[in-house]
Amino acid sequence: MKYCRYECGGGARIGAVVEGGVADLTVRRGFRTMTDLIAAGAPGVLPATPDHDARAISFDQPMPEARRIFCIGVNYMNRNEEYKDGSDAPAHPSIFARSPLSFTGPDKPLIRPSESEQLDYEGEIVLVVGKPGRRIPQAEAMNHVFGLTLMNEGTIRDWVRHGKFNVTQGKNWDRSGAIGPWVETGLDRLDVTDLRIETRVNGELRQSDSTASMAFPFAKIIEYISTFTEIGPGDLIATGTPTGAGARLDPPVWLKPGDVVEVSAPGIGVLRNGVADE
Amino acid sequence: MKYCRYECGGGARIGAVVEGGVADLTVRRGFRTMTDLIAAGAPGVLPATPDHDARAISFDQPMPEARRIFCIGVNYMNRNEEYKDGSDAPAHPSIFARSPLSFTGPDKPLIRPSESEQLDYEGEIVLVVGKPGRRIPQAEAMNHVFGLTLMNEGTIRDWVRHGKFNVTQGKNWDRSGAIGPWVETGLDRLDVTDLRIETRVNGELRQSDSTASMAFPFAKIIEYISTFTEIGPGDLIATGTPTGAGARLDPPVWLKPGDVVEVSAPGIGVLRNGVADE
Repeated sequence: MKYCRYECGGGARIGAVVEGGVADLTVRRGFRTMTDLIAAGAPGVLPATPDHDARAISFDQPMPEARRIFCIGVNYMNRNEEYKDGSDAPAHPSIFARSPLSFTGPDKPLIRPSESEQLDYEGEIVLVVGKPGRRIPQAEAMNHVFGLTLMNEGTIRDWVRHGKFNVTQGKNWDRSGAIGPWVETGLDRLDVTDLRIETRVNGELRQSDSTASMAFPFAKIIEYISTFTEIGPGDLIATGTPTGAGARLDPPVWLKPGDVVEVSAPGIGVLRNGVADE
Repeated sequence: MKYCRYECGGGARIGAVVEGGVADLTVRRGFRTMTDLIAAGAPGVLPATPDHDARAISFDQPMPEARRIFCIGVNYMNRNEEYKDGSDAPAHPSIFARSPLSFTGPDKPLIRPSESEQLDYEGEIVLVVGKPGRRIPQAEAMNHVFGLTLMNEGTIRDWVRHGKFNVTQGKNWDRSGAIGPWVETGLDRLDVTDLRIETRVNGELRQSDSTASMAFPFAKIIEYISTFTEIGPGDLIATGTPTGAGARLDPPVWLKPGDVVEVSAPGIGVLRNGVADE
């Protein structure tokens, strides 16, 4: 099932994607947010015909109310080598945090601010946490995942290294990234240990790798994060980006107004965004 | 005025500290959260007698609903030198993020987890953002501050350096830090450019410095953060800790169950916490 947040005139609603459109789970079930839906569990039988026609709606950022967005850095094979700092592969994941305000929704432009020309893409698969848990063993980790969505973990590259430590200020520009188009819950249909993630810019393939290449696979990430905090509904975990971001090209290539970036994973969908100056 | 979140039996309320107790601003004004109060502005005339007697209430973490908690690292004079890495003073502040779930309230224990003995204190002054703004000039910055509160930016020190970059996992253990005891809004009575912040452990002075020693003063921090994001009600900015955390002693001294930590600033108050094993 694909659960979504969408606009159909007069405010955002929570819905389920059905043949021809969406079922309105705000009116039918009272869910005001995706977190409400996740906390309540699966919403049961859905209508056979859509409440809103697909042509009458637009999908939006699924979880603007997310309480935490943990992002894993340097997680795909060869990513550590990209830094050319001679360091060994890390023993633990690198984690930083983004605010929901730093993301827009599908089909809306990523915003390039006046302070930098270095807006860059990073395609990622996102774990949408469901069942609460602390100190979750790897063998049980996927039971705590409600679904998957996609992220363009858009980055203002020159601001990432502004501080002595931490990348916060390069990763939290308002609407510099995107999340969506929906949350796919059919995990039994997906091989999450070998799921392809790709990023295209104006149709050109820039990133392509499999979750099989991850230094820290989904289950390990969940085990690690849940060691220090109880995870639950409202938490998102972006699981890292493959090689091939614009900063890694020689010379670097930044996003510019008019570009179209597509992040995709088979079985989840395509997250498509343009680029606009602020 | 001191605005607080407090318990008086049957759930948390928002209040104002008055002679002998608190005025109940949840019942009187309908504020469910401190963010509600901040967004609404000053609540006007308060009752002459308290709605709840001081002995009948306990103060709690003022803003568990905070949408963002930005923390500034390495900001007091000599803090950069503590790292002994030969680096120059940074040109920009270092920023990391904490979740509200990583904080408890006043007079509640900081939690030492089973995974580490390295629970450490960091006393800090916190800017509670009021009026929304983006790209705020330093000269106008303090107009965007609703008030000040205190933080024990409790840290699991060995986990701070787990990742290749970023300190997230050492700074986000559940209830490893504390915020409170209230939000002081009387900024006209305080010289924010020379405000003393002190931390005591079992009565022994461990940290003492003035905001005059900051590499990045309040106004500069607000200017910088508001460059990349619109700040507003719901945002907290912890402004860094002076030298003298337990990790900097030789040998290091960690917090242990039974210890009492007090973070204080004149004109704001005292944030007092014990320490307990999970």
